[in-house]
Amino acid sequence: MTGAGPLADLARQPTRAGVLAAAAKVAALLPPTPLLPVEIGGVTVWCKAECLQPVGAFKIRGAWHRLSELSEQERARGVVGVSSGNHAQGVAWAARRLGIEATIVMPRDAPAVKLARVRELGAHIVLYDRASEDRDAISEALANERGATLVHAYADPWVIEGQGSVGIELAVQMAAQAGGEATRIVTPCGGGGLAAGLVLACPNAEIVTVEPEGWDDMARSLTGGRILAVAPNPPATACDALQTLATRPINFAVLDGRARGLAVSEAEVRAAQRFAFARLRLALEPGGAVALAAVLAGKVAPDGRTAIVLSGGNVDAAAYAEVLLGTG
Amino acid sequence: MTGAGPLADLARQPTRAGVLAAAAKVAALLPPTPLLPVEIGGVTVWCKAECLQPVGAFKIRGAWHRLSELSEQERARGVVGVSSGNHAQGVAWAARRLGIEATIVMPRDAPAVKLARVRELGAHIVLYDRASEDRDAISEALANERGATLVHAYADPWVIEGQGSVGIELAVQMAAQAGGEATRIVTPCGGGGLAAGLVLACPNAEIVTVEPEGWDDMARSLTGGRILAVAPNPPATACDALQTLATRPINFAVLDGRARGLAVSEAEVRAAQRFAFARLRLALEPGGAVALAAVLAGKVAPDGRTAIVLSGGNVDAAAYAEVLLGTG
Repeated sequence: MTGAGPLADLARQPTRAGVLAAAAKVAALLPPTPLLPVEIGGVTVWCKAECLQPVGAFKIRGAWHRLSELSEQERARGVVGVSSGNHAQGVAWAARRLGIEATIVMPRDAPAVKLARVRELGAHIVLYDRASEDRDAISEALANERGATLVHAYADPWVIEGQGSVGIELAVQMAAQAGGEATRIVTPCGGGGLAAGLVLACPNAEIVTVEPEGWDDMARSLTGGRILAVAPNPPATACDALQTLATRPINFAVLDGRARGLAVSEAEVRAAQRFAFARLRLALEPGGAVALAAVLAGKVAPDGRTAIVLSGGNVDAAAYAEVLLGTG
Repeated sequence: MTGAGPLADLARQPTRAGVLAAAAKVAALLPPTPLLPVEIGGVTVWCKAECLQPVGAFKIRGAWHRLSELSEQERARGVVGVSSGNHAQGVAWAARRLGIEATIVMPRDAPAVKLARVRELGAHIVLYDRASEDRDAISEALANERGATLVHAYADPWVIEGQGSVGIELAVQMAAQAGGEATRIVTPCGGGGLAAGLVLACPNAEIVTVEPEGWDDMARSLTGGRILAVAPNPPATACDALQTLATRPINFAVLDGRARGLAVSEAEVRAAQRFAFARLRLALEPGGAVALAAVLAGKVAPDGRTAIVLSGGNVDAAAYAEVLLGTG
């Protein structure tokens, strides 16, 4: 136990040692998600299928690392999470397993399947309006009121270390299957929790973050050398999991100078969802498909040791059917 | 090399030693497919995701075991396969990897995605009409004409042993993840190649074969104690991979007294496809979902160490979208 008790230092920077500790804990609980080869333009790329986690997304990793470190007293007071649905499920899953009461602040327009799954896992849901309400203010107020622990979706050292366990698994699998370390890891990016974890886990790989067009605050920040929010009035996107307005210092400190960012269009995302269905037999949600979309669109050139994170697969059936039919 | 050369004994019975040899060969080539837990009626069942193989189905195993045992002379004369699409892809994949010319006899009404994929893998396709033509006669004539090796989809000892490697992987994974051997393995069944392989691989498990209603020749045969064909005029089924008229002696000799068989309706199959999408984020073809359908429909009671084979995921996007929308 690294002691995330009442005196836990939330401002501490995440470390590679922490990522390795998280990876050991995750390995004791969950089998590695498969690394699936697929050919793109004659080159084999390696897809890390995080959509196959029990909650359908990598978020289970960070949530487990965070919640399992809480003290008995903290567990008794419960946890509060904020999420459009995948971190929500990760927190709810870990909380149920540990017997912790969980409250999740979720946007009213979250996919129905995500809301239903969080409820099924036994968490309480507090809804908010993305356009008019501040989710951080709501969740902080809730946590203070109850003395509960706030588990941020990405600005938390344990969460970042937990997500980094993807990279530790990936390194082992790349060595066994691709003959060596990943030279490049292309990953979906919301707030930068997973991306920061990958930087710590895979120090020799180039990390490429991918966001939906108009929601490319990470790309802007990496280019600008300081945290920049998305431009005003961002466009509608099907990538509900990646609608983050800005990264946070704890994430940016890890990513700055170590990653580059790019963006994909909605049409490119849909094409990637169709490709994953046809070639990998995987159902990906839009946000889970953006890294694959970037490679398919030629925005990242694969080199035979390029890994792509397929980060989530929680999508409403009707919306997914429309994507397959080409009408979405 | 066990010597499947010109003098290879195709009439020999498959053995457990052969399954273990096949499993070692497959393990050197392909990482294990994941074993995914999912709750059904409050009980955790274990889903072996063979739809995640490079060709989208377990058939790659038997094809690899068979083709890799061919002598240089046999390889030079090519192979002929018969299949509605998954064995076809397995043979084409193995043939390409070994530099063998492959010809596949496929039904005219095979899913477009299966026809396209076999062509992409570089195999020649000869089409036949399911209703009016005898696929075995066509393929035997082709093989004789060319001196090629006929690779039957299920009535071949190497193919059976290769498919059995699913069970060897499963045993290792069940021990690690479920705390012990599978008590019961529920599997889709066409001709009985996979089912026979599982009997050899997992001697302590009950093997339950599942077929579409009206195509339940295996269930009838297991009940009757002798090989029985499907009843005349079988109904239409979406399970193109499981439209086998009768099993063969080499399969039945292994299965008789060791397996029981049951059937599922088309609606139950569609419900299983929707469940796999929502709960496992996997795209299953109808035939790949029948074992899951049987458990979901309550026709097999899961006991916490029940394994379900999800055998394939090659399905046309439009047909799959209709299933998701509930209009299929």
